[in-house]
Amino acid sequence: MRRIDHIGIAVEDLEAALAPYVDGLGMVVDHVEEVPTERVRIAMLPIGDTKLELLEPKDPESAIAKFIERRGPGIHHIAIAVEDVAGSIESLKAAGVRLIDEEPRPGAGGTLVAFAHPKGFNGVLVELDEAVDR
Amino acid sequence: MRRIDHIGIAVEDLEAALAPYVDGLGMVVDHVEEVPTERVRIAMLPIGDTKLELLEPKDPESAIAKFIERRGPGIHHIAIAVEDVAGSIESLKAAGVRLIDEEPRPGAGGTLVAFAHPKGFNGVLVELDEAVDR
Repeated sequence: MRRIDHIGIAVEDLEAALAPYVDGLGMVVDHVEEVPTERVRIAMLPIGDTKLELLEPKDPESAIAKFIERRGPGIHHIAIAVEDVAGSIESLKAAGVRLIDEEPRPGAGGTLVAFAHPKGFNGVLVELDEAVDR
Repeated sequence: MRRIDHIGIAVEDLEAALAPYVDGLGMVVDHVEEVPTERVRIAMLPIGDTKLELLEPKDPESAIAKFIERRGPGIHHIAIAVEDVAGSIESLKAAGVRLIDEEPRPGAGGTLVAFAHPKGFNGVLVELDEAVDR
């Protein structure tokens, strides 16, 4: 079934940013990991059938660091779980939606991912996420 | 169970903003309604156990119009479904999280809602949403 895989949130300091979710709302951190390809450290907080993904930049040149510099910390992207990223790319192209990735590429944890362009979704950065080994 | 009730997305034109979700991703609009108290027109797109809520301002003085003027269209807030908004407010206060609403107030569709302050969640506007009549 189609669902939101995660909501990506850019933060300056992971531990400080986790506090209101964990101490204030009683949410639980599933895991923390470094994602060297994106130059970030992330914490995953499951909620219902989705997750919050807090992203802390590990490099001032990373996309997340630049986002924070430009707009401040906050919600960065929505990742939608789809069955077939390549097929979704074709559907988006057919609907005239602007893309960043015209081909699926490997993502974290054995996924295939593609990003639409924020201009394609009126200011929302949408990631498509296909779990190839789940 | 705790879940994301919806993700609120500020848009300038509801029909144009719906197109990539509906035509490009095959999502379905559950309903469109005016919410006079917030001076917006909204469209709800169910996905998994949550929904995308697209919000179009109907008044240049509305919070959504001001958000778009300041930051452009994009993700505006995350609403978390909780069992007890008043209890969640107390937990957030105890954790030192800054709030907008110190008391629950009536929301759309017979809910009780409260907003935390974006500074309390490092730039994320978090709404707590208790379904009192579901």
